[in-house]
Amino acid sequence: MRKKIIIMGGDLRLSYAASYLADKNYETVYFRGSADENTIKRSGILLLGVPVSSDGETLNAPLSEDKIYLNGLAESIDSDTILIGGKIPENIFKCRTYDLLKRDDFAYYNAVPTAEGVLETAMRETNYCISQSKCLVIGYGRIGKVICDMLGKLGTRVTVSARKASDMALAEALGHKAENTLFLKNFVGDYDIIINTVPQKILNAEVLERTSPDSLIIDTASKPGGVDTDEAFRLSRKVVCALSLPGKVAPKTAGEIIGRTTQNILDELGE
Amino acid sequence: MRKKIIIMGGDLRLSYAASYLADKNYETVYFRGSADENTIKRSGILLLGVPVSSDGETLNAPLSEDKIYLNGLAESIDSDTILIGGKIPENIFKCRTYDLLKRDDFAYYNAVPTAEGVLETAMRETNYCISQSKCLVIGYGRIGKVICDMLGKLGTRVTVSARKASDMALAEALGHKAENTLFLKNFVGDYDIIINTVPQKILNAEVLERTSPDSLIIDTASKPGGVDTDEAFRLSRKVVCALSLPGKVAPKTAGEIIGRTTQNILDELGE
Amino acid sequence: MRKKIIIMGGDLRLSYAASYLADKNYETVYFRGSADENTIKRSGILLLGVPVSSDGETLNAPLSEDKIYLNGLAESIDSDTILIGGKIPENIFKCRTYDLLKRDDFAYYNAVPTAEGVLETAMRETNYCISQSKCLVIGYGRIGKVICDMLGKLGTRVTVSARKASDMALAEALGHKAENTLFLKNFVGDYDIIINTVPQKILNAEVLERTSPDSLIIDTASKPGGVDTDEAFRLSRKVVCALSLPGKVAPKTAGEIIGRTTQNILDELGE
Amino acid sequence: MRKKIIIMGGDLRLSYAASYLADKNYETVYFRGSADENTIKRSGILLLGVPVSSDGETLNAPLSEDKIYLNGLAESIDSDTILIGGKIPENIFKCRTYDLLKRDDFAYYNAVPTAEGVLETAMRETNYCISQSKCLVIGYGRIGKVICDMLGKLGTRVTVSARKASDMALAEALGHKAENTLFLKNFVGDYDIIINTVPQKILNAEVLERTSPDSLIIDTASKPGGVDTDEAFRLSRKVVCALSLPGKVAPKTAGEIIGRTTQNILDELGE
Repeated sequence: MRKKIIIMGGDLRLSYAASYLADKNYETVYFRGSADENTIKRSGILLLGVPVSSDGETLNAPLSEDKIYLNGLAESIDSDTILIGGKIPENIFKCRTYDLLKRDDFAYYNAVPTAEGVLETAMRETNYCISQSKCLVIGYGRIGKVICDMLGKLGTRVTVSARKASDMALAEALGHKAENTLFLKNFVGDYDIIINTVPQKILNAEVLERTSPDSLIIDTASKPGGVDTDEAFRLSRKVVCALSLPGKVAPKTAGEIIGRTTQNILDELGE
Repeated sequence: MRKKIIIMGGDLRLSYAASYLADKNYETVYFRGSADENTIKRSGILLLGVPVSSDGETLNAPLSEDKIYLNGLAESIDSDTILIGGKIPENIFKCRTYDLLKRDDFAYYNAVPTAEGVLETAMRETNYCISQSKCLVIGYGRIGKVICDMLGKLGTRVTVSARKASDMALAEALGHKAENTLFLKNFVGDYDIIINTVPQKILNAEVLERTSPDSLIIDTASKPGGVDTDEAFRLSRKVVCALSLPGKVAPKTAGEIIGRTTQNILDELGE
Repeated sequence: MRKKIIIMGGDLRLSYAASYLADKNYETVYFRGSADENTIKRSGILLLGVPVSSDGETLNAPLSEDKIYLNGLAESIDSDTILIGGKIPENIFKCRTYDLLKRDDFAYYNAVPTAEGVLETAMRETNYCISQSKCLVIGYGRIGKVICDMLGKLGTRVTVSARKASDMALAEALGHKAENTLFLKNFVGDYDIIINTVPQKILNAEVLERTSPDSLIIDTASKPGGVDTDEAFRLSRKVVCALSLPGKVAPKTAGEIIGRTTQNILDELGE
Repeated sequence: MRKKIIIMGGDLRLSYAASYLADKNYETVYFRGSADENTIKRSGILLLGVPVSSDGETLNAPLSEDKIYLNGLAESIDSDTILIGGKIPENIFKCRTYDLLKRDDFAYYNAVPTAEGVLETAMRETNYCISQSKCLVIGYGRIGKVICDMLGKLGTRVTVSARKASDMALAEALGHKAENTLFLKNFVGDYDIIINTVPQKILNAEVLERTSPDSLIIDTASKPGGVDTDEAFRLSRKVVCALSLPGKVAPKTAGEIIGRTTQNILDELGE
């Protein structure tokens, strides 16, 4: 028989993750806040939110009114327990931890809702049709690849800006144009929509100055982001910060992704 | 030399239409409200809003504070003038009228922003990714064809519901599934998203009852629409009325479409 | 119980049609040549080849060595019999005839293997990749629409040449470029691959002279075709006649299409 | 001024490479066979065929009747010369060598003609339409990614069989299905067309036995290939070996790819 999964805290996504796992015939118990100490102790598998904690002290559990301290929680957990979650503070939890945010499959699954969120943002924030606009996507990693695929299929003229020759070549083989990010400032002015996926200050003052005044900039890079926002403000450029899109635009899908990756982890462990 | 085009009233789209026509080397003069009588009299070509009037009495000119009566305006217009606009009241205007809303090209050009608007609506109103959802598009006319094309390219599993065997066959040839609208109630329950494009009460009580409680219904049919809204309310179905999307989601593109169709009309007339 | 279908003559496709119909639970009997007179007399439904006859005198039955005269065959058929086939000589057969070649669904279903055949031809006859080439498709009817859709999805830069403004507008709405066939000679020189789908001598001497010497011309129009072949020969243009593609490139699919359309006919008749 | 490029030997592709480089304003001299010793000595840049040699002794120069020995050729080359070619025997050539076959960009550029060649093969070798068939692509490297992209856009139901969880996740994010190659024998029987891109004996006796008797197997893996051909023969499976497709199906594109990669190399060297 499959082990019981205790699911605790997290936002709306974790409740969808619970439904997903139940559908897959795992025995699951879901608590918006904390389970009692005994339950935790006896649970073989524990799934917490993404991230596990926002402040480093208490459990991320916005649907509950209780404050649950990580230290207390950690003490209740048996050292044999499989603990799954996002950005697990490993100095606190000494059991067998599996961090969702360190996994490739989790990142790729999330690329789809992220790309849809970028699309929705681009549609909402422009007063023209994106399907015949000129889009520059900076970075061709996991998120970049899926964004380019969707935009290209919709008929957008997509250019990929990348650093590696092999990324540029793959982008071309899949039907996009490709440019070298090294020379970004020379071509950035040609685009209606500029989407950054690289977690570096790529859109600095020098580059921003060359963007078209009508352009829309969408930044998906995690904090501190890829845009010099002071400079963008000074130049009156429209910048939309598009962080944590999956949970915002498609919490059901995002929750199922947590459930599915959890399943992958348990499969790999033979549980 | 090209004749001067006088552009009067209309919403934001008409100002974009004016820019478009100016870019194409037409001599254009744009008035948010009314031009003076002499200008109107001497203008060879007059472009009014879409629609020309919302109340049948005054010019549709929401960006102006003046009330401009159609009867007075009509008197100032020479009988040789080419008058272009949407839903032109032909009992009032006795000059050479060309109604944008009666033209196929205008309808097809607008299908693109309409389809993008439907996509944006579907993305916004669902808590899952549309790219792997099951969509039913009822009707395979101008709008339906473009909606299906975009959804299909995004990876959505699209089924077309149509009445004519030839429409069903074309839909299949272009990669979609096809069903006969005659049997709508038998299959409507299988879909996450139901998009109606047919201007008839297709989604009546009998059909609505068979839809899935979680389904999203998007209605693009002009008033009175294709959904029995009382019944939908009773059943707690989520219905989004998506009318006049081009002007709402992409006014710049919609304005350029007015400009471009105007150009087509003038080309055909040899002006 | 469903009526028995007697299937007689035809090429390889008809044997696939027989399998298709048997799979759909019709009672079928398939003869490469002729059934005996009694069988024919008692058969409620008779399916012949596409076309029924190539010479107007004998049954089209290339897989049989017998000569079967249409007049004799017609005499054996009861006047109540449902006769299905391609290009039925109605002066000879006096029963209830349903001609496959007059049906929209048959034409659309066949557009898919036709388009694949055109694609395969284009790939085989060029020494470069078609996915980044410039293609002109003349005509935007049933075949044209599906060819453009496939080429466009593969990344080819597709331009549609059409006569009707509404066809040009639909082509643009679906992501292609559009030109007016009236001015064909002005733009035909810009393309690597020119695909004609219009059954008229569109590619006459005047137009051919303007094509690029390296261009490939594929003609799908039925005899006498859309290309002035003498002139093309004089100019050393490469012309590939691509007729009856479904039966050549995908006989199994083409046979299933005959079976499926037969099924549509019987459904409509309530048989 | 740019250095002169001497181009020697190779098949048809090398003559297209020469034209490509000339178009890009390189000074080029092309010899089907060997240039004279002095020319070779003074040339700063030397481009040979792909591969440079087929037998390890003489230059690959099928368009020439001369036998050109590698040892002699190597002696004429100055040690400062930039030598570009495919599979350069580095024990013989002691100058600055740059092997095209070791470069990612070269491989990706060639993925497009390879994928088109696979498509053409699949269309030619089946008697049904590939656009609605079920395809399994084994391996999701450079070639696999582009093949899946093209097949998917054409409407084929594509499943990727891969080993790495991240490859499976990317395949799904781009709209395909994904399976684990570890369990290949359990699902290989479900497909009409099986395309192998992995240079290992993946389709061994055990797996072949589970394939459908009607399936078509296309093997793009370099020698000794990925299919146990003896076993396939015993089982009467249809196997098509699809090696070196770019040069066969699109020599012009393949030649331009040699030219373009040469240009990339020279750009990187600052020449």
